Amino acid sequence: MKVGLIGFGTIGAGVVEIFNRNQELINRKTGRKVELKRVVDLDIETPRGVEIDPEKLSTDADDILEDPDIDIVIELIGGYEPARSFILRAIENGKHVVTANKALLARHWDEIMSAASEKGVRVAFEASVGGGIPVLKALNESLAANRIQSIYGIINGTANYILTGMASEGCEFEEVLREAQRLGYAERDPTFDIEGHDTAQKLIILTLLGFGVYVPEEKLHVMGISNIKRHDIEYALEELNHTVRLLAAARLEDGELELWVMPALVPADHLLSSVTGVYNGIYIEGDFTGPVMFYGKGAGRRATASAVVADCMDIVINPEKRIPMGPGFEAVKSVREFSRTTSRYYIRLEAVDRPGVLHEMAGAFSRHGISIESVTQRGAVEGETVPIYIVTHSTMEGDLQRALSEIMEMEWVMGEPLSLRIL
Amino acid sequence: MKVGLIGFGTIGAGVVEIFNRNQELINRKTGRKVELKRVVDLDIETPRGVEIDPEKLSTDADDILEDPDIDIVIELIGGYEPARSFILRAIENGKHVVTANKALLARHWDEIMSAASEKGVRVAFEASVGGGIPVLKALNESLAANRIQSIYGIINGTANYILTGMASEGCEFEEVLREAQRLGYAERDPTFDIEGHDTAQKLIILTLLGFGVYVPEEKLHVMGISNIKRHDIEYALEELNHTVRLLAAARLEDGELELWVMPALVPADHLLSSVTGVYNGIYIEGDFTGPVMFYGKGAGRRATASAVVADCMDIVINPEKRIPMGPGFEAVKSVREFSRTTSRYYIRLEAVDRPGVLHEMAGAFSRHGISIESVTQRGAVEGETVPIYIVTHSTMEGDLQRALSEIMEMEWVMGEPLSLRIL
Repeated sequence: MKVGLIGFGTIGAGVVEIFNRNQELINRKTGRKVELKRVVDLDIETPRGVEIDPEKLSTDADDILEDPDIDIVIELIGGYEPARSFILRAIENGKHVVTANKALLARHWDEIMSAASEKGVRVAFEASVGGGIPVLKALNESLAANRIQSIYGIINGTANYILTGMASEGCEFEEVLREAQRLGYAERDPTFDIEGHDTAQKLIILTLLGFGVYVPEEKLHVMGISNIKRHDIEYALEELNHTVRLLAAARLEDGELELWVMPALVPADHLLSSVTGVYNGIYIEGDFTGPVMFYGKGAGRRATASAVVADCMDIVINPEKRIPMGPGFEAVKSVREFSRTTSRYYIRLEAVDRPGVLHEMAGAFSRHGISIESVTQRGAVEGETVPIYIVTHSTMEGDLQRALSEIMEMEWVMGEPLSLRIL
Repeated sequence: MKVGLIGFGTIGAGVVEIFNRNQELINRKTGRKVELKRVVDLDIETPRGVEIDPEKLSTDADDILEDPDIDIVIELIGGYEPARSFILRAIENGKHVVTANKALLARHWDEIMSAASEKGVRVAFEASVGGGIPVLKALNESLAANRIQSIYGIINGTANYILTGMASEGCEFEEVLREAQRLGYAERDPTFDIEGHDTAQKLIILTLLGFGVYVPEEKLHVMGISNIKRHDIEYALEELNHTVRLLAAARLEDGELELWVMPALVPADHLLSSVTGVYNGIYIEGDFTGPVMFYGKGAGRRATASAVVADCMDIVINPEKRIPMGPGFEAVKSVREFSRTTSRYYIRLEAVDRPGVLHEMAGAFSRHGISIESVTQRGAVEGETVPIYIVTHSTMEGDLQRALSEIMEMEWVMGEPLSLRIL
């Protein structure tokens, strides 16, 4: 079996490294000689820190896509084009595809899967969610007898590094972001990771596998972590015994699927609170298996390459394998409007302290039927700005946002209020 | 595809329940009609709390084993015989086998796997380790490109319930054991679970998959938890910031495999310390994927049945699937003698306090080249018995045991000393 790799970047170099180091293992486990025959990238000059026979390098994707000798194409260039065209051509030419391209799958799932199904080839994508964590195979195959009830994932290492760094070092967002950039855990333009878009794309894939429903990113409620302050994290931990984590959530209730990407308060003794730094954790509940969690490195050259090569080996071993996808039952009747979802909430307002503030605020909450569990104003000095921390009982998102809009109109409120769900 | 179930006990009833509730899902996901055709048990009278067509029940295993219509045999009677004979006959008759029988696999692995390989049928056993946690498939397939470096598992729910209950409730072993028995988390005769034998059998299977080496239970160092006192757990947490967990460990170092089942001190911030109650967690390190952990219910009717039915579905979908087993590389040159393994140690002695105790004890450690990190004697009153807590630097097990033997001869020592590894 011959493999062609398109995209000799970070993960691509990791794939080459696995073939270099574990070639014998790969052959023995698959019972075949599996050869990485060709590696294509626009740049084949810059050293990647891995040994590779220069004969194998090419700048022309056709050297893989049009080579009848190549059985499996690994696509690791990312993004929409030319990745999409390359994958469709590989399929058209009867080749199996292995990809880590979450963006592409999240947008062009149907097109790619239909093409593969028509040509009778496999598209494997374990590396697209959770890096080296085998969560997709588990969801698809190992939990196959279950009706999935909920999925909660910490699936962006950059955001988790920042949130947990703010907690452990007592620093503000910008400071930990700069440190993450220095260490290579955050991109120079970190928007995609910290604003939740990467998490959203992965949630789309998890939702497809867990619930058999495709929801485009535009329909997801996505909120990032850049508004989280150090004192939110401190208050959550010290007063409420919760950590703050950027979560991807998919939860089925009464046939309606609730989906969101948001920072949320997680009980400190919940296993997801133990997921720190760049690690990922995905917590899944099935009707029979109960809660299971998968933990590991959600990104990085070696871990992600491990998932890519495992996919190749799976194809070598079982090229005809049918993968059961989706829930296999019509559980999801609709996707619940985000404004109709309910949760307990943590709210933080910045307010100028003066008499009557609490009374006016309580009035707004009351008019929208929101029941308050606690209100705390710390270190209030009349005339100065202080944070007010509010915890609500179970509240409908739409009611909360209407109440907050009213409160925003009050003259003593400064800046934007923050509202986070409590798990 | 038709399935026959032998063993209508707790897990067997769970399997029937999944077929009752998720039959449509099973058919859709596999693309076949999968029917639970027959259920055999010696007792088919006692109600199991699940609906089943009485026509399907039989007391004669031949009704499954000799029925040419049945493709898959689920064996859930446990133990060695008649489970072994039933499985071998099922294989002989060309049927696939799904089993949760860790005891049988840990002892008769070669015989069963050779027979299956000869007849070209599959033997699936996800439920044998970690109940509903899909750790075996992950180890075998998802981590296939890795050289496994170590496996640390909390894989006995009874022992974990007791150890974590002692910590959270501040109770002694016997008290929590009685509570566990009352709640059905421990057997009336709990020896098998609390003395580590169940954990050892599961470790044998994990070692086969992770390292390709079969080690019979007699060659494993197995120690249970019945000697752990409440004050060991308290000292570990308060003074050393570690929890106590019954671990199965397999670790490869310089080509030598180190294997043991023992209660050990785990750093409080390690993910394995977050595994509490009857839950299981398996922590695996591969050379590329780095650390990954799998968490969930390691036992119980519904979770274990989930793994059993997933195995059936996997067979229905891919009856010819080849499963890569073992490491695929000759990594393990030998199994390290337990006396030659090294670790930091926590030691607790009960001693009559009198002058010179510390001097004599230190002499014994010194003669065997053991370097001490700390010694603490709490609440000493001359002439009375008090615990002495010792933490060593990295020490070879054999040296430690020799030193402890010498110390045992000293007249001020009372009872057996306890020595636990520190992870």
